Formats: sequence, C-alpha cells, structure tokens
Amino acid sequence: MKNLGYYDGKFDLIENMNVPMTDRAFYFGDGVYEAVFCRNHKIFALDEHIERLYRSASLLGIKVPMNKEEMVALLYEMLAKVDGNEHFLYWQVSRGAALRNHSFGELNGKIAIMIKQMEMPDTYHKVKLISAEDTRFLHCNIKTLNLIPSIVAAQKADAAGATECIFHRGDRVTECSHSNVSILKDGKFITAPADNLILAGVARAHLIAACSALGIPVEERPYTMDELKAADEVIVSSTSKLCLAGYELDGESIGGKAPELLRSLQDYVVNEYYEKTAL
Amino acid sequence: MKNLGYYDGKFDLIENMNVPMTDRAFYFGDGVYEAVFCRNHKIFALDEHIERLYRSASLLGIKVPMNKEEMVALLYEMLAKVDGNEHFLYWQVSRGAALRNHSFGELNGKIAIMIKQMEMPDTYHKVKLISAEDTRFLHCNIKTLNLIPSIVAAQKADAAGATECIFHRGDRVTECSHSNVSILKDGKFITAPADNLILAGVARAHLIAACSALGIPVEERPYTMDELKAADEVIVSSTSKLCLAGYELDGESIGGKAPELLRSLQDYVVNEYYEKTAL
Repeated sequence: MKNLGYYDGKFDLIENMNVPMTDRAFYFGDGVYEAVFCRNHKIFALDEHIERLYRSASLLGIKVPMNKEEMVALLYEMLAKVDGNEHFLYWQVSRGAALRNHSFGELNGKIAIMIKQMEMPDTYHKVKLISAEDTRFLHCNIKTLNLIPSIVAAQKADAAGATECIFHRGDRVTECSHSNVSILKDGKFITAPADNLILAGVARAHLIAACSALGIPVEERPYTMDELKAADEVIVSSTSKLCLAGYELDGESIGGKAPELLRSLQDYVVNEYYEKTAL
Repeated sequence: MKNLGYYDGKFDLIENMNVPMTDRAFYFGDGVYEAVFCRNHKIFALDEHIERLYRSASLLGIKVPMNKEEMVALLYEMLAKVDGNEHFLYWQVSRGAALRNHSFGELNGKIAIMIKQMEMPDTYHKVKLISAEDTRFLHCNIKTLNLIPSIVAAQKADAAGATECIFHRGDRVTECSHSNVSILKDGKFITAPADNLILAGVARAHLIAACSALGIPVEERPYTMDELKAADEVIVSSTSKLCLAGYELDGESIGGKAPELLRSLQDYVVNEYYEKTAL
C-alpha cells in the first residue's frame, strides 16, 4: 500500500478511511498522539514514544484499549503493509466514541493510525525561523490533539518561508509549534526545562544524551529570547528534525558561531538514527 | 428520525454517521462550533449564533463553505427531519479534509451537524458549583473544538455532583467549563468583560439585554472569586442554562440573597425563549 490509515481494527488507504462521527477526537479534540520515524520498517525510539503516549493518556484519564506490547505489535503489523523504506508513522488514542457530552463515563479509547512514506529531512540544512507569543494552554506537557495555536503558528511560519515558529511567554522561550528549541552557548547546551510549558521531545532527550556522550555540559533551565538571539547556535529538534540549526530569526541572523560543536551533535544523532534503523 | 447526524451533504442517525479520517477536526481539533436550543422546530437566537460562528471561523482563517443564508436553510432542513418538540442542535465547521500537516493551504471547511431531542432544563432549579484554576489558552473568545481543559473540568464537576465548574485565573473569575458566570450584587449585574479570556455567550448577551429592559445596572468588568463568594446571587448561563442560580460552591453556601431580582431575570429570559419559539 502507498500509505495506510487504521481505525479501531480496520485499515485501508488513508483517503478511504472513515471514522465514527461520535469519536470524541472529532468534536472535542479529546485525545493524545505520537509520531515516529521509521526506516527499513524499524521504528526509531519507539519505546520512548509509547511510554509518553501512555503517560499523556494517564494524565487525562484516557483508557488506552490495549497494553504496550500489543500496541508495539499493532504498529509494526500496520507498518509492514506500507511500501517504501522510510515512513512517518502517526497514531492517536481518543477517549472513545459516544454521543457528545462534555463529561464522560466509562469509555474505552479508540486508536487511529496514519502512515505515510517520507524521507528524513536533511539534518545539516540550515533553516529560517520566526517567533510568536506563546498563547497556548498550561498543559503543553501532555501531547494532546488540541493543536489550534500550534497549527496557526506553523502556518505563519510556512507563509514566511520559515521552518518553525519559536514560542515565548513574555521573554521566556518555551518551544516551537511542533518542535523543541535549544541553544548552544559557550560550549554548553541550554534547553527549557520539562515543565508544563513544553512537550519534552524524544529528539530533545536524545540530544541531551548525545551531549552527555560528547562531554557537552547541559543546562535544563528557563532561558530568554535575548539569550537565544545571542546564542552560538539555535537548534530545533523533533521526530522529523533530529537537530536542525537556525540561521535566521524574524529576518535577523542568528547562530553560526559554533559550527564544530553543532556538527558533532548532528553527526551523533544522525548516526544514532541510521544505526538503530539499520537492517 | 430520533436524532440526526450530518456531514458534508450526507445525513443519517448520529450513531450511523462516519466522517473522513482526514478531517482536520479529528487530529488537530481544527474547527469551530455552535450549539442552539430549538422548540417547535424553531431555532432560538439563531442569527446571533451564526454571526459568532462566522466570526470564530474568520479569526482562524477557516473558510465556511456556504453563506449565512444557506447555513440557516441547511440547519432548518436537518432539524425538520428529527422527531420531538425540543432539540439541542450542535454544528461545527472544520478547516477541511487533507493529509495531516500542521500548515494548511487552500482548504474548504467541512460542516458537521448533530441534533438530539432534549428538553430545556428547569431554569429555576438551583445548582451546585465547583471551581478550578483556568489553565486554558488565551483564545477563549473563539469557540473552537480544542476543549480538553473544559471537558476535564466538566467531568470534575460531574463527579462532584455539581452542574458546572467556575474557572478563575488567579483570583479573577473568567467563566465556567461551558457556560458564562455572572453575579448580582447590591442590585447590579456584574459579568466578566468579553475579552480573550471568555466566550461571550449568547445567553449572557440576552441576560444583559434583560437587565437593560428591567432597569438593572450592568457592569462588564473583571471581578474576583471573593466578590463571587460574597455576591447576592451567582448566575450560570449558556444555551441550555438560560439563567441558573448557584446555591453552593466547593461545599460552601453562596447566593440566595436577592431572590426577587433573580426571579425577575429568570422570568424574563424564560419568557423570551418560550415567546420566540412559540408556534
């Protein structure tokens, strides 16, 4: 198959798939999700994503209708049906299907999966960035389907020819519309703490581990837009952006002052991705 | 039909209706909605809801795929198919259907409707309330499908045997999980201003108009939880709660000190509902 959509036991091409109108994801955005990259039909860092999915669901009282081992098996079973060598695999668990009512009783979650062919973007390609005030809710640590502020910011970035939009609450940097953002300064890796203002990315965790392996000191602490603008490098990371460096923010030059340190981090996480997904 | 679900030109019982997996409401909550009460197959205050729907869509750049007159005609056409005399009519417009991508190009919105039989709850029945910190985003003036904090609060209220949960940002009262909240104090009607922290309810607007007709002074201004606890009456209002008074908040007694003023407001909005939906 050229792509695959799955819902509650059924699968077909994404464009042929239907879901019940009563799924609470459809009218409340009442669900959580994950997205992973796959190569050679191996799913990168799957355990970490699975753990986070169950944590997100637990924080909202959403009942995932299968255990972690069954979910791993389901994702691999569906991935095996899709042509191609590299894939972006998205899946969500909604609270369940019922007539619309804000409060909910005992519902079983509903799983949806969407798999498309996609090559990992070039990690060494520098990117443009824009910024915007972070107006999101205070539950950004939960990976929910309530994504309107993120898609509005992503669209704004797209319209500006930029790759991402950096959010800040006042002067404090939080994250991007669907990525984390970290900086290199004076040989250190500085990244916002994993509180309720950011989604602690798996790619961010791998960058922190890479720093540890490479002997780069890490500071997980709030940092400001001024620090970001004066940083040696600005790094955007997500499932599909292992370690992208920015060269421009809102039309002004940024980063570019620690190319070797940046390169060592990029090489580390790129190599890790290719090694872990090797045949 | 005992109820009705509609999506993009097709209709059936809600429980039989399917929608495309690619609808952005399903994976981003990327849509806006309205809900109205109907009696004798007449839709109460429809023009105001239609205006707000188009305003919400416009604020997010969502293209509603028909004009206001066509939408009115569609809602009445679908309502006519449903048995019963009183109905709750919900409808939403998502940004459209496409393969999942945060940014969006030129999409046409998709309309979904759900109509169920429901009697207007007794406006004179006093209710229990709870309160919680308002952790929602800063776009509460837009009636979006990103409703997780609201449904979590509504569920909390339900579990406590309460009708609504009053949100506050710090000490400042905003609104409830799916209603507005206002107070009566010393003969005045005090309600939070229609800024980005609340959804300016149609029922709230009708209460303000009722105050004007009854000679009750109105203050649209921020007010605090302390003011609410000391108020003569606490009023919760929404499409299905024309003017409910609270008698208990988080286990403590509230209100009950201006029964005649409260009754005059309740009578006014109840009479208005029955007159405007008379045969």
